[in-house]
Amino acid sequence: MTGTLVILRHGQSEWNLKNLFTGWHDVPLTEKGISEAAAAGQTMAAAGLRFDESHTSLQTRAVVTQNLALAAMGQEWLPVQRNWRLNERHYGALQGLDKKETTEKYGADQVHAWRRGYATPPPPVDLDSPEHPSNDPRYRHLPAGVLPAAECLKDVVERVLPYWYDSVAPQLLAGSTVLVTAHGNSLRALLKHLEGVSDDEISEINIPTGAPRQYEFDDKLNVTSAEYLGDADAVAAAAAAVAAQAGTT
Amino acid sequence: MTGTLVILRHGQSEWNLKNLFTGWHDVPLTEKGISEAAAAGQTMAAAGLRFDESHTSLQTRAVVTQNLALAAMGQEWLPVQRNWRLNERHYGALQGLDKKETTEKYGADQVHAWRRGYATPPPPVDLDSPEHPSNDPRYRHLPAGVLPAAECLKDVVERVLPYWYDSVAPQLLAGSTVLVTAHGNSLRALLKHLEGVSDDEISEINIPTGAPRQYEFDDKLNVTSAEYLGDADAVAAAAAAVAAQAGTT
Repeated sequence: MTGTLVILRHGQSEWNLKNLFTGWHDVPLTEKGISEAAAAGQTMAAAGLRFDESHTSLQTRAVVTQNLALAAMGQEWLPVQRNWRLNERHYGALQGLDKKETTEKYGADQVHAWRRGYATPPPPVDLDSPEHPSNDPRYRHLPAGVLPAAECLKDVVERVLPYWYDSVAPQLLAGSTVLVTAHGNSLRALLKHLEGVSDDEISEINIPTGAPRQYEFDDKLNVTSAEYLGDADAVAAAAAAVAAQAGTT
Repeated sequence: MTGTLVILRHGQSEWNLKNLFTGWHDVPLTEKGISEAAAAGQTMAAAGLRFDESHTSLQTRAVVTQNLALAAMGQEWLPVQRNWRLNERHYGALQGLDKKETTEKYGADQVHAWRRGYATPPPPVDLDSPEHPSNDPRYRHLPAGVLPAAECLKDVVERVLPYWYDSVAPQLLAGSTVLVTAHGNSLRALLKHLEGVSDDEISEINIPTGAPRQYEFDDKLNVTSAEYLGDADAVAAAAAAVAAQAGTT
């Protein structure tokens, strides 16, 4: 029987709170984010989930979110694979900028296009910028040309899917229950693929922080059900909060 | 150039504190153990260490110790492999018993032999005991006959070495800096192999909790240096405390 997938977006980070473009910048969780992570674990335990395998990005806020959620489930020991392909969208030269100030400088239309245009990447960072991943030793195994200097959601889909096909999908086809803890846009990319969302419609879909989304599949890995776990009102409120912040990453 | 290995024994657990035989029983860290783990991370960071790879047992106290140590180094994202071969020695029918009461019941000589005899396993647990690993879902991928019902240190050496040769040694030969976070006896087994300690002498060697031990190697993976990091007096005091408790596991 095909396994079960749960995707989990990390809790609030310090730059979410400060309303800065974050992307690949490595930012810790806030106290609220820590609480969200533990609560997500309690929600998954209450749903009767026991994981067999897990995956995270290489970014601290996703790693720590998963550690805290698994601790709440007594599953700290779970095998985990960590991969750059699950990282947040790289926000290019916008990383570290205030979202409001950026809108004032470039205009709302331009910023909306960078945030929600499916195939519109923001301006790239230079190779010698501290925001270019080639200057972070955790990515040293990858050539600079493979690492992103700026990404649109289309780019994220293209780099997430190889990991999905090679590392996650085989575990599901083997019947495992699998947790993937990642980011607003890497999970939107995965959701787009799994749920067959069009390039236009995906811009309207917001994944709330700390709300586990559970997928079941047929034996061809077509999705047969998809739902957020936990209190439906709380999930809706969290999604609305994300939408109001418009393109939190 | 051959890489660097650091071995780290988990901090104090709740059953260490209560003076119970622990073995494969999954017990959380105490507050002191949590502090020891973070301090170990600070010690490793102060020594200039940056890890490329890491390994833990499948037991919560080792997993959490490593998570806390890596958090203190800003390396939460480090790739990690978790494997049962790094677990503590299985203490058989002694697991959960009070060490003092066990000595009163069986006599000091018998208990000393179980604790420190290189080839003397304690009485095994039955296959239907909750202390038999076949009843813990985290070991479900292994046949019951492969899982231990009781182990002496010789048994631990025999099950640790395949993991050393297959998973850790190749990383060191490739030049990586590698952290292995595990247990008093699984690390004694590894130390015995690396440092060529005899079957008799290993009983006198105690690895202190939370004290990272750093190894350097030649290109044949022979040890060229081995030393505990951090304050030498504190390390000696911690080792003496372990010796005084006589075979803490």
